[in-house]
Amino acid sequence: MDKDINIGIFGLGTVGCGVVKILQDNADLIRKRLGFGINIKKVFSRTSKCKNLITNYIYAKDYKELFDDDIDIVLELIGGIDVARKFVCQAIDNKKNIVSANKALFANHGFEIFSKAAQNGVKIGFEASVAGGVPIIKVITRDLMANNIKSIKAIVNGTCNYILSQMFETHESFETILNKAIKEGYAERDPSFDIDGIDSAQKMAILASISFNAKVEEKDVHVEGIRDIDFIDIDFAQKLGYRVKLLGIANSKDNKLLVRVAPYFIEQDNILAKVDGVYNAISVISDMTGQTTYVGKGAGSLPTASSVVADIIDIAKDIESGTVKDTLSMRVFEKMEFVDIDSLESHFYIRFSVVDSVGVLSRIANVLSKYNISIKSVVQIGKGLDVVPLLVLTHKAKESNVKKAIREIEKNHQTIIKNGTVLIRVLD
Amino acid sequence: MDKDINIGIFGLGTVGCGVVKILQDNADLIRKRLGFGINIKKVFSRTSKCKNLITNYIYAKDYKELFDDDIDIVLELIGGIDVARKFVCQAIDNKKNIVSANKALFANHGFEIFSKAAQNGVKIGFEASVAGGVPIIKVITRDLMANNIKSIKAIVNGTCNYILSQMFETHESFETILNKAIKEGYAERDPSFDIDGIDSAQKMAILASISFNAKVEEKDVHVEGIRDIDFIDIDFAQKLGYRVKLLGIANSKDNKLLVRVAPYFIEQDNILAKVDGVYNAISVISDMTGQTTYVGKGAGSLPTASSVVADIIDIAKDIESGTVKDTLSMRVFEKMEFVDIDSLESHFYIRFSVVDSVGVLSRIANVLSKYNISIKSVVQIGKGLDVVPLLVLTHKAKESNVKKAIREIEKNHQTIIKNGTVLIRVLD
Repeated sequence: MDKDINIGIFGLGTVGCGVVKILQDNADLIRKRLGFGINIKKVFSRTSKCKNLITNYIYAKDYKELFDDDIDIVLELIGGIDVARKFVCQAIDNKKNIVSANKALFANHGFEIFSKAAQNGVKIGFEASVAGGVPIIKVITRDLMANNIKSIKAIVNGTCNYILSQMFETHESFETILNKAIKEGYAERDPSFDIDGIDSAQKMAILASISFNAKVEEKDVHVEGIRDIDFIDIDFAQKLGYRVKLLGIANSKDNKLLVRVAPYFIEQDNILAKVDGVYNAISVISDMTGQTTYVGKGAGSLPTASSVVADIIDIAKDIESGTVKDTLSMRVFEKMEFVDIDSLESHFYIRFSVVDSVGVLSRIANVLSKYNISIKSVVQIGKGLDVVPLLVLTHKAKESNVKKAIREIEKNHQTIIKNGTVLIRVLD
Repeated sequence: MDKDINIGIFGLGTVGCGVVKILQDNADLIRKRLGFGINIKKVFSRTSKCKNLITNYIYAKDYKELFDDDIDIVLELIGGIDVARKFVCQAIDNKKNIVSANKALFANHGFEIFSKAAQNGVKIGFEASVAGGVPIIKVITRDLMANNIKSIKAIVNGTCNYILSQMFETHESFETILNKAIKEGYAERDPSFDIDGIDSAQKMAILASISFNAKVEEKDVHVEGIRDIDFIDIDFAQKLGYRVKLLGIANSKDNKLLVRVAPYFIEQDNILAKVDGVYNAISVISDMTGQTTYVGKGAGSLPTASSVVADIIDIAKDIESGTVKDTLSMRVFEKMEFVDIDSLESHFYIRFSVVDSVGVLSRIANVLSKYNISIKSVVQIGKGLDVVPLLVLTHKAKESNVKKAIREIEKNHQTIIKNGTVLIRVLD
């Protein structure tokens, strides 16, 4: 029997308590499968959601006790950037292997951490930072290692997916569903981190980095959220065979990268269109394996903690074998150029807000045509009301042209409400 | 730079040629990510589908050359049982690590191979034996290692899923679609291995073994195929909100196991209902992570070969680190009892073939009621024809009772065609 591995935990919030629970409840299982146990040696946490679980463990008085010689792996589970970054860097300087669930940290300082880890010969696990219980980081970096990844298309925010699914099912407004989601705990009291796409952008920066071996940080991701989505959009999409989802997409084009988060019209046969509620789903398209898709709960104490424990086990096996080697941290992540999203071509859905009057459609059509944008389908909802939505689906057009046309239409025609236009791309 | 890893390949069929292609086309990528290369040192194959790719490599005159000292990992890619088994055992005796894509071998002799591997300190990779390019074996044994798995529900045969999807879409008969599938290469000329569920049973034996740490072999799996499925069944299912899929299911109940392959009615919101065509999908339900689902191509040269190469890389990293340790082979797989499928309760769909006549439904209903089977929904399709289908959906009932009732109904009533009844379970 090999000797047990000792871990130290910084932070006993939702995820930290999940980790304690798994390591306690499934201790025998883990020991049987691994041949050794995982032992919680020290915990540092100002507050704890699970004090009752850990009376037997020693609370550290200072976080530096987590760097003691007898601790093999340190878990950073406090979230946030500044303190977490300082802590992780110090831990690595003290030759500690790290497991973290911190997407903000890795989307903004991942490369600093990787290079520090490579210098110090320690291993970094951050599976739990993206898509909770779905082991997408290991799938990409290990199972698809011999593949060139072509693109990633992903639903990585459960809150947004829940809201859009609920709007689709109940026909209720964004505001109504958001408030319901907050009440039921599916959305935060300040929901902007989720619904404005920031959370998704952090996760996509991480996924794009490991998929394309590229330096991608949060600031490199084009972000649009779902605040402007109306049931009208979802309903129109459905009638044309689409579903509306907040997608993260990363792909390369002529050796440049494009990473973005935005709502999309997705054909209803696409597997991503079929993933509803708080579930996450990541489709990876690669040269040898084709499309594979990974679906599961993107958040929650135990699913996320399960990914943390998988990382602990992964590093523990290396420690037992005598050689900790982090081929991921040792990779050279290349500085790549980014494609300007305005240069892309796609089909677009445009919702204009118009004052119902004779000639409004012809005015819109004229400007679109001037910018080489041809209309595939158009519907005006309602009549005679003050302001009504006018919905346009275009053939393939250049994004910069579409944006110019919208500006011109809004500027020159009194019957079209200024800044009232919503633009959603159609996924190829 | 570490030294390259040398592999020997037995068998250059569809998968073998895919492996050669990946190792050649993506050699730089693999070297960059791993820090060393994978070198094809020797090949033994009577025939080859890719002679053009491998002129530079040395064909062995005898398969025993694959056991040479300078070969680190041996690939068994010939398929079939007897020769493959002998070869793999001999290779392990010669302290070779093994990668294989052979489901029949592992579903029938896996435990012999694991125990031999553990004795000899070598590692076994068989990711490619289940679900082609989907890394389900590593997900279960590695990423979900700290989870108790509750059940596996899976579409693991692309041919059957293609046929059922096509029947759903085109409304054509099983025979018509099967012939089309054979013509298009989606089904074998002798399709029984696929459509009678044998292929799925082998894969489910492997998945059940690693999920429940249990000795499950092909003979332990209850198997039913899709030959009797008619478009009528698919259509009736759809009208009630179900889809028909050939599922492999493994779960435990009171410390007994049940592993079966059979067509099922699945609620259309279940993600498995939404996976169409040649795709495979495996849902894993575990205590900590909940439900996660893995979707991708279950067959084909490159997807399957990608999984073989992932196994090669996994073992190669161990070799480079100096410690090859196969925690999977070293597990104790327990001998467990199996649940009798007749003892289960579920909702059932029953298609009787009846001669349209007054009183036929009441005769059927009487017998069902005698066996405590209550009817949820019933439809008779057509009228006045010689023989018409009469479709019944039951409330929850015991399977043994349902089977007894059908036997009694067929035996005692001339208006009901003998052996003409089709029974499909409804997934809970």
